[in-house]
Amino acid sequence: MKAGAGHNVQVQAHAGSAASYDVVIRPGALDELATLVPRVAPAARYAVLTPDRIAPLYGHRVLAALGDAGLRAELFQFPDGEHHKTRDSWGALTDALLAAGYGRDSCVIALGGGVAGDLAGFVAATYMRGIPVVQVPTTLLAMIDASVGGKTGVDTPAGKNLIGAFHPPRLVLMDPRLLATLPPEQFRSGLAEAVKHGAILDEAYFQWILEDAGAILAGDEGAVTRLVARSVELKAAVVAEDPLEHGLRAILNFGHTVGHALELDSGYSMLHGYAVALGMLAEAAAGERAGVTQSGTVARLQQALLACGIPVTAHGVDVAAVAMAMRLDKKAREGTPRLALLRHIGRCAPAADGRWTHGLPEDVIAGSLQGLAQPPRAV
Amino acid sequence: MKAGAGHNVQVQAHAGSAASYDVVIRPGALDELATLVPRVAPAARYAVLTPDRIAPLYGHRVLAALGDAGLRAELFQFPDGEHHKTRDSWGALTDALLAAGYGRDSCVIALGGGVAGDLAGFVAATYMRGIPVVQVPTTLLAMIDASVGGKTGVDTPAGKNLIGAFHPPRLVLMDPRLLATLPPEQFRSGLAEAVKHGAILDEAYFQWILEDAGAILAGDEGAVTRLVARSVELKAAVVAEDPLEHGLRAILNFGHTVGHALELDSGYSMLHGYAVALGMLAEAAAGERAGVTQSGTVARLQQALLACGIPVTAHGVDVAAVAMAMRLDKKAREGTPRLALLRHIGRCAPAADGRWTHGLPEDVIAGSLQGLAQPPRAV
Repeated sequence: MKAGAGHNVQVQAHAGSAASYDVVIRPGALDELATLVPRVAPAARYAVLTPDRIAPLYGHRVLAALGDAGLRAELFQFPDGEHHKTRDSWGALTDALLAAGYGRDSCVIALGGGVAGDLAGFVAATYMRGIPVVQVPTTLLAMIDASVGGKTGVDTPAGKNLIGAFHPPRLVLMDPRLLATLPPEQFRSGLAEAVKHGAILDEAYFQWILEDAGAILAGDEGAVTRLVARSVELKAAVVAEDPLEHGLRAILNFGHTVGHALELDSGYSMLHGYAVALGMLAEAAAGERAGVTQSGTVARLQQALLACGIPVTAHGVDVAAVAMAMRLDKKAREGTPRLALLRHIGRCAPAADGRWTHGLPEDVIAGSLQGLAQPPRAV
Repeated sequence: MKAGAGHNVQVQAHAGSAASYDVVIRPGALDELATLVPRVAPAARYAVLTPDRIAPLYGHRVLAALGDAGLRAELFQFPDGEHHKTRDSWGALTDALLAAGYGRDSCVIALGGGVAGDLAGFVAATYMRGIPVVQVPTTLLAMIDASVGGKTGVDTPAGKNLIGAFHPPRLVLMDPRLLATLPPEQFRSGLAEAVKHGAILDEAYFQWILEDAGAILAGDEGAVTRLVARSVELKAAVVAEDPLEHGLRAILNFGHTVGHALELDSGYSMLHGYAVALGMLAEAAAGERAGVTQSGTVARLQQALLACGIPVTAHGVDVAAVAMAMRLDKKAREGTPRLALLRHIGRCAPAADGRWTHGLPEDVIAGSLQGLAQPPRAV
């Protein structure tokens, strides 16, 4: 694992293409935005798209920096929250850019959490058939998950991220100092994805998170920067191997098939990372039942999640409703949910057919869902 | 120019990529759809998206053929017309596919004119971040223009095609026999784009259209197939050179800067090809005034358009409104309309800066717009 004050990770943008983009991870990196952006995305005008909560925190600062650098930029705000990540919000933002006269020689700067990245990214992906986007994530979840990989999109009543496009950014700029203003619950929600990265790809990283959870939760700059950098490295390596999600990238969905269903069932009131945490436990339990996942894996997952202050039980979950939501999930193929499963902590298990997802009988998944509503096992 | 009963044109899908797709042009090709589609786009389910007018003409026939071939397919209809090429129609279609349980392993078949191709193509481009699409154009305009090049999108109140994505099809299947059911006005509207292809790229083709306009307008199968094939060859060559519209592809916009503004000003009641025809005349006149376009070019364009039965005057055009609409056009850069201009029939004129569009003073364009409202010159 690399450590240190700053990291540059390079991500391959498209299969078989030479296009790639840099992920800059450095405390204080926000101050370099106005210098870096015109190099990777020269444009006549910059539209900074940011949610209402982020505008006063960082939006005006970004705008001033761009202006000082002689760049023409404006702020476009939208309401916070996953329930605003809709076609309507997307339509309103594209209309606002059109009304302001933004042309094809414009660039979008997506400043905010995962919702901002997905929504602003989808605006960029579809504005005049695609204009460049620079991702500036302000949450841990967005840094280590949403902003790398080029996925953009919106939710519909049928589920999350069902409408969208692949639109790789020109640059992802991550300043771990921005996480100081992140509500603690949101920070822990992001941490769940870091635990996932360790669980599917890197046992040493998993173990480090478990052991240094205290420093990470206390916001230690070195620990947080190391966390962001290693998670991005791991995710970027997977994305580079499978940019369009045809194979290996499915392992990043560990915990997400059940997790998405939990979020949907909660009306998106459950934090994404918390839903994924419960999803990982349920899917690991299903894997143990099916004999794919090493026994004891669920217990280790619980231990790490608890160390990170992430809830590991879901009292009052409606198992039947979650199972139904899962069936509608976009990863479902012809009605059979397919899950990415662990072999053990640090490694995923390929299926017999060579794919990275397993079709499990519904009663095995339902049984593991039941377990979520129980108190945690002793660890 | 190639002639004969059938043509296969190969189109490069992405810059620097090995991906490409075939354009099959053959009388009777519709009967091969169910054989060809599963080869280029194997899918668990096929969604045939078609406008209400086309469903009874060809939709049910396509559905039956797919069913006979053992493929699972359903028809999704939407209202006819450019004014339905909206985000709302797109949202309704994606919701319909989601409600029917279509997954990522589905394929869209876009059966219809340019609106169907753009709208269904945009559905495919954004459904679960992109699923394959097969284009089956049923109008001359869609065959020789919209269905080659991978452009998809919808209109907004601010203008045409301002929201969309590049999403190359897996196959474009063109059956010239389908044009037998096309209203004659629609056929002539498409013919205007063929005249454009000759005007910008191939003087011999331009001359052939002028001389054989009678056979073409009478629906002679050989003449119509030759027309479709040559126009597709010409367009495909340009698209291959510049798939993402960064340079050369701008020449395909000859007539379109003014044309789009005319359409917008008419509330989209003017046929696209008719608007482009008037746009070509206005832009050629502007080019002559600016000394870029050879004198006499406007007269030759008028001659060819008249031979094809295409109107060459626009009485009652509100010049000021059209000029304003043009300024909002997406090809406008920083408020200055840029036009693709002819050197002479068969060849475009590069600008001094090496680009394929010219920034002309507004009064030159306004003057040429004024000319549209006048009776045609003697030819």
